[in-house]
Amino acid sequence: MSHPRGPLAQLRRGHEELVLELLRKHGPLSRGELGKLCQLSRTTLYDILAGLLSTGAVVTATQPDAPRGRGRPAETLTLHPGAGQAIGIDFARRAVHVAAVNLAHEIVGSASEPHPADLSWEGRVDLAERLVASLTDGGLRLGALSAIGVGVVGPVDGPDSEDAPDPAGGESTPEAADEPAHPAQVLLGERFGVPVLLDNNTRLAALGEAIWGAAAGGQDVLYLRLSHGVGGGLVVGGSLHRGAYGLSGEFGHITVDPAGAPCDCGGTGCLETVASIRAVLDAYRAAGGRAEDVPELAKAIRAGDETALTLLEGVGGRIGGVLAAVCNAIGPSVIVIGGELAETGAALIEPVERALRAQVMPVSRHRLSLRRATLGEAAGALGGIALVLHESPLLSRYPAGPDLAADPIDVSEQAPKEGS
Amino acid sequence: MSHPRGPLAQLRRGHEELVLELLRKHGPLSRGELGKLCQLSRTTLYDILAGLLSTGAVVTATQPDAPRGRGRPAETLTLHPGAGQAIGIDFARRAVHVAAVNLAHEIVGSASEPHPADLSWEGRVDLAERLVASLTDGGLRLGALSAIGVGVVGPVDGPDSEDAPDPAGGESTPEAADEPAHPAQVLLGERFGVPVLLDNNTRLAALGEAIWGAAAGGQDVLYLRLSHGVGGGLVVGGSLHRGAYGLSGEFGHITVDPAGAPCDCGGTGCLETVASIRAVLDAYRAAGGRAEDVPELAKAIRAGDETALTLLEGVGGRIGGVLAAVCNAIGPSVIVIGGELAETGAALIEPVERALRAQVMPVSRHRLSLRRATLGEAAGALGGIALVLHESPLLSRYPAGPDLAADPIDVSEQAPKEGS
Repeated sequence: MSHPRGPLAQLRRGHEELVLELLRKHGPLSRGELGKLCQLSRTTLYDILAGLLSTGAVVTATQPDAPRGRGRPAETLTLHPGAGQAIGIDFARRAVHVAAVNLAHEIVGSASEPHPADLSWEGRVDLAERLVASLTDGGLRLGALSAIGVGVVGPVDGPDSEDAPDPAGGESTPEAADEPAHPAQVLLGERFGVPVLLDNNTRLAALGEAIWGAAAGGQDVLYLRLSHGVGGGLVVGGSLHRGAYGLSGEFGHITVDPAGAPCDCGGTGCLETVASIRAVLDAYRAAGGRAEDVPELAKAIRAGDETALTLLEGVGGRIGGVLAAVCNAIGPSVIVIGGELAETGAALIEPVERALRAQVMPVSRHRLSLRRATLGEAAGALGGIALVLHESPLLSRYPAGPDLAADPIDVSEQAPKEGS
Repeated sequence: MSHPRGPLAQLRRGHEELVLELLRKHGPLSRGELGKLCQLSRTTLYDILAGLLSTGAVVTATQPDAPRGRGRPAETLTLHPGAGQAIGIDFARRAVHVAAVNLAHEIVGSASEPHPADLSWEGRVDLAERLVASLTDGGLRLGALSAIGVGVVGPVDGPDSEDAPDPAGGESTPEAADEPAHPAQVLLGERFGVPVLLDNNTRLAALGEAIWGAAAGGQDVLYLRLSHGVGGGLVVGGSLHRGAYGLSGEFGHITVDPAGAPCDCGGTGCLETVASIRAVLDAYRAAGGRAEDVPELAKAIRAGDETALTLLEGVGGRIGGVLAAVCNAIGPSVIVIGGELAETGAALIEPVERALRAQVMPVSRHRLSLRRATLGEAAGALGGIALVLHESPLLSRYPAGPDLAADPIDVSEQAPKEGS
């Protein structure tokens, strides 16, 4: 997924950028007209064009009213009307992850940086901007940026929420439509001058894994992320599911112990109170173990630390029980487990799988496939890009962006600010 | 929903039947041609036709090649091409429920009869046929029957099941396609000579409630049925959900007590082991209460029996906990509770609601609407009809019947056998 580097690749990218800029500025051009404007040699230009045509960033069109003389009919080159670069940004609790696609919708790179949990939104957006700038150094051309897809922690309502009149509980629907924009949406809109689509970052990670990752091609997918928070997302009957009020996939707030610890959500004994990174590390230290973070815990496990193994056996059992309940309700074919805690490997995943298969309906037991996530920390940012491109059938029933399709954005006037 | 009775209504129905039979036999006819063939008075014929036109069973067409003389252009009458009667049959564990719609897709009646749990499929289909015959006495005309929608207990796979290649668990998909037809499907097909569509009966009840019942208009609906079995169905994002292998909505097999009683499904401590009719009655009798069935239990509750109230408080808590878990996972806006056990009323529903609101994410607490089902025991049969008519947007992502739309069935040659 990394973009080729080196002086030759950079030179070529500069030529591509020039050709794309000319097509953006002048509209459709013939090869002859392009040659005059770009001042490149015929061989170089045709080589660059062949590349752009093969990726679909540029398409050819035959002018219907062109005079028919000898030789080939007049053929013009134009930017693919639906093409556009897109950026995905995942604002996780303690890190920002970004990823970008080029005009041909190929992933050109991704970048991440951790930050303190109390960093302001201004600080997070600054960080995102720096990370995006690092991608542009690596070959991203922001002149064609069409939109940004952003994931944030917590429930996100949207235009697809239940809008049928609800006789018994109707009061919550109208207010949702008037919700103020999220600070990330406002700040990014100001800095990049393009539409910013927002969704729950874990749901976007589910989307990423279901399109490009461990569940690629799955029509009914349950994605669980074990990180600082515990959450997930569902692909139901071939569509990403948002829930009536943007609240689906909250597996971390399913009660596992009604007499358990209080949870940040206001509930008691939620899965998150036993299966989040903090909960697991706290329990490990309370049992006499020493680990400051998941890599240290993973190291203890590799060393055969019995305290850690016993702890993860119990945590895995809780997770498997919740997964079994959700599987009985929804009937997925694939379960994907991601998040930093999944890095502890078999010590966690095996007890999860044992509890899952013990508690799910016996008839489903051998139909379920449990898999580790494959996209790592970039999953949410990649899901943000998928949300913008809106090309996956998984989004067939999801709201499109703010008229991205109906009203193409004039990107020529919207050069981004330089990264700080 | 009942059809008007009495000699005049029967006479009128006989005339309608005659007109429909002539149109079925001769194809499009003018009013004059119909008058000659049916031998009814002009006033009676026009009255009957006005009724049939107003319900949409008959439509008018102007022949494009008709000679243009004085007066009105030649207008012909024809059966509505998409019209057809349909029957829904719910084969519950201990009863058969049937319902039917006329050519205009109005519900013309429903009927039910209990039977022993060990009745054979031949016996159940005989019973269904008798119940259908009782509806035909009430005005149903089987000559236009287009299909039967049937609900049965247990998982039902179908043409919409996951057919994307599944790298890890692919062996279960091919066998599903070769599953033998269900006995109900075979026997009904033989007796009625029309296509028989099959689905899980609780899922069909969910469909019925979401189209015509307590959740009409809902886009995200959770339906729970507390009967001899405990199950349910989900409407997810405006579509009835079937699950990857036809196994969604199995709320009754979510574990509520890993150390609990063995369940018929092969699992342990499932919700069904505490919340089915038998489980509740057994627990009541074990605690010293006396009740042979749900009406007797309801009577004890109305009399303020503390044993019954305490029992239902506990059962309701278990049910509410399962509902909360599923709500956190899927985020519905409406929960509908049906089945005989819901007839115990507030003694059960109030503890369900308390546990639900205590355990669901606080942010969802006031967005959820919990309702009693309204269609009673006919819900499954009505859902079967909905499956056949396939007119609800809830079925937009559900497989259509066996080419019902693409290849209209010639019903003229398929008169049903007389009921036994």
